[in-house]
Amino acid sequence: MSISKRARNVPASPIRKLVPLAEMAKERGIKVYHLNIGQPDIPSPPQMFSALADYPSKIIAYGHSQGEKPLRQAFADYYKRVGIDLGEEQIVVTTGGSEALLFAFSLVASPGEEIIVFEPFYTNYNGFAAQAGIKLVPIATDVDDGYRPPQPRLIKRAITEKTRAILVCSPNNPTGTVLTEEEFKGIAEICRHHHLFLLSDEVYREFIYEGSAYSAMNIPDFKDNAILLDSISKRFSSCGARIGCIASRNEEVVSSALRMGQARLCPPVIGQHITLSALELKPEEYITPSISEYKKRRDITHELLMDIGGAFALKPAGSFYISARLPVDDAERFCAWLLNDFATADKETVMLAPLAGFYATPQMGRDEVRIAYVLCEEDLRKAMKALKEGIEKYSM
Amino acid sequence: MSISKRARNVPASPIRKLVPLAEMAKERGIKVYHLNIGQPDIPSPPQMFSALADYPSKIIAYGHSQGEKPLRQAFADYYKRVGIDLGEEQIVVTTGGSEALLFAFSLVASPGEEIIVFEPFYTNYNGFAAQAGIKLVPIATDVDDGYRPPQPRLIKRAITEKTRAILVCSPNNPTGTVLTEEEFKGIAEICRHHHLFLLSDEVYREFIYEGSAYSAMNIPDFKDNAILLDSISKRFSSCGARIGCIASRNEEVVSSALRMGQARLCPPVIGQHITLSALELKPEEYITPSISEYKKRRDITHELLMDIGGAFALKPAGSFYISARLPVDDAERFCAWLLNDFATADKETVMLAPLAGFYATPQMGRDEVRIAYVLCEEDLRKAMKALKEGIEKYSM
Repeated sequence: MSISKRARNVPASPIRKLVPLAEMAKERGIKVYHLNIGQPDIPSPPQMFSALADYPSKIIAYGHSQGEKPLRQAFADYYKRVGIDLGEEQIVVTTGGSEALLFAFSLVASPGEEIIVFEPFYTNYNGFAAQAGIKLVPIATDVDDGYRPPQPRLIKRAITEKTRAILVCSPNNPTGTVLTEEEFKGIAEICRHHHLFLLSDEVYREFIYEGSAYSAMNIPDFKDNAILLDSISKRFSSCGARIGCIASRNEEVVSSALRMGQARLCPPVIGQHITLSALELKPEEYITPSISEYKKRRDITHELLMDIGGAFALKPAGSFYISARLPVDDAERFCAWLLNDFATADKETVMLAPLAGFYATPQMGRDEVRIAYVLCEEDLRKAMKALKEGIEKYSM
Repeated sequence: MSISKRARNVPASPIRKLVPLAEMAKERGIKVYHLNIGQPDIPSPPQMFSALADYPSKIIAYGHSQGEKPLRQAFADYYKRVGIDLGEEQIVVTTGGSEALLFAFSLVASPGEEIIVFEPFYTNYNGFAAQAGIKLVPIATDVDDGYRPPQPRLIKRAITEKTRAILVCSPNNPTGTVLTEEEFKGIAEICRHHHLFLLSDEVYREFIYEGSAYSAMNIPDFKDNAILLDSISKRFSSCGARIGCIASRNEEVVSSALRMGQARLCPPVIGQHITLSALELKPEEYITPSISEYKKRRDITHELLMDIGGAFALKPAGSFYISARLPVDDAERFCAWLLNDFATADKETVMLAPLAGFYATPQMGRDEVRIAYVLCEEDLRKAMKALKEGIEKYSM
């Protein structure tokens, strides 16, 4: 008995595969600072918990496949606030941004077809692509220029007859890079010319520390091409609620996402119920102070990183990640070593995500890591201190 | 811009596509009894709501990709109680039985490969198959013998070089048929001989009114072939929580499901938290009285159905559905007519699911419907009265 070829292609999560080593370190009494995963330490809005206690029915029943209408309306209102004009009928609520991605991949590409993506990219794109039987075609970006998107000629060169879409993520996971309006429009021009969809993962929309975020949904004359992928996980520090959405002004895209949504009946109704209460909050009640906190963390993380000899990253403008080059031969080995063979005098160490797993091209990113600055200042300082010491010891 | 061929193949839910007609009927002041969808009217266990009010953290954080360990242990304990021996490490918690199905399809078959299924079958298998790019190969069963599974020679005849699995559902949605131990073993023998997986959808395990349920997990010498698909939606009347699982004693199957699980990070954590409290209940605290209630409903529904001239179904042994032949030319047209053009003197009507959408073979099931007896006795009697009157009027 053997599993399918497709299933064999689904990779283990490079973010999660070092977890057993971290657990063993903890069993040895070592404090592990988790900068490896985008799990914020900021409490979810208290209103979400009040809503939990006030569940309005005695039956946890199926909801609408498209998501509850009041929630879709709340999403539409939220988008209006951030300058994106979408009607509730153009939104399909999904089980996290994850399901939005899986729907989008299946929706634009049949098995064997291709989606272009700039690497390094959110590693789970690989898992969804393998599951959907499609091919991600990577174009490399470079730590030295802050992982700016590739030149249009390089993008055009990657297009084949099987290409169905270009996938971007801005603000970016794992690099923190934010696409400019011009960069978005340049990519849109290519999509228009080659009849490609633009899948735009904008999960970190609010996490912007310089300038402002531009959305693929605001590209002029691009109604049929643009597909927005979103999630409330980071925005409301509620990754476990598993609520996101896919939205488009292309009616066929929405009706197709809805048909996939009907097969799985509905997104989690309790998560939807509490998301509604979070989306009703004014920015100053939650998002704005949360973003100030992240800006401080970014500044600290980048400063302490630059203080490590041989480490390099431009200061990223958004999300809550920094991808950086470290002075190590093999970042995966180094990250494992930090957990297995290292601790500071205070018995502390740090867990990072090796960046190789965020590339589709073998051998790339081998001296790079992703740092998620999701801990409070005090912990962040201790974690970066452990990293500095670790690098000095590892290099010896 | 056009969506993928795969996405065009994802069908709209035949259970949900008459919903707009039902909404219009309600706007005209007509009471619609919903026997079209498996949404029970029985309250979820009150313990689930206490657990909601007591969420044990200030952050709704990511959980484990495989599901929280205490929940997996609770699933294992539950399986032990119902006579199935599974360790927590053999269980991957999923976002409803829906995700368990999608994982299983992708896991056993690559795009273009085939899974054999007996029709009529749970209609959403079609959606997941289209999304995964695989082909469901149907073998017909017949209302006249209570939709018993096909003869082994017919199953063998359907096997090609692309066949990777046989999918069964017992107790069955939509027919209520329960496979016997001998039938299970006969199918297993074919799987063993042809190196096929057996995907066993046992979501309605407890919903048994004659005899007892046999599980694919209890077939001897079948460790590597059997994959269990499960959900707590019906058992605890909590369809909106979206918690299910996939389980197997085949380690490669479990690790592959876990890799797919890692891509989507984790199942809904709040749903997991409250499911734990439900799984800890003793049968007599919830399931047993719930099943007695359904048995009464089945008896009433079948009796009232048999009282309709020209309607036919054997009395099914399990689940909470009856599939029946009705004396109508086209059940889909008839179901739409019930909503659009009919009401009793009390301004009531009934919504059913036309069975054609539960077949993969065109033109089959055109005079059949699925009746979900998920309403209380009083409502069920009114609904069946409306159906009887409707058929008499429609036939005139």
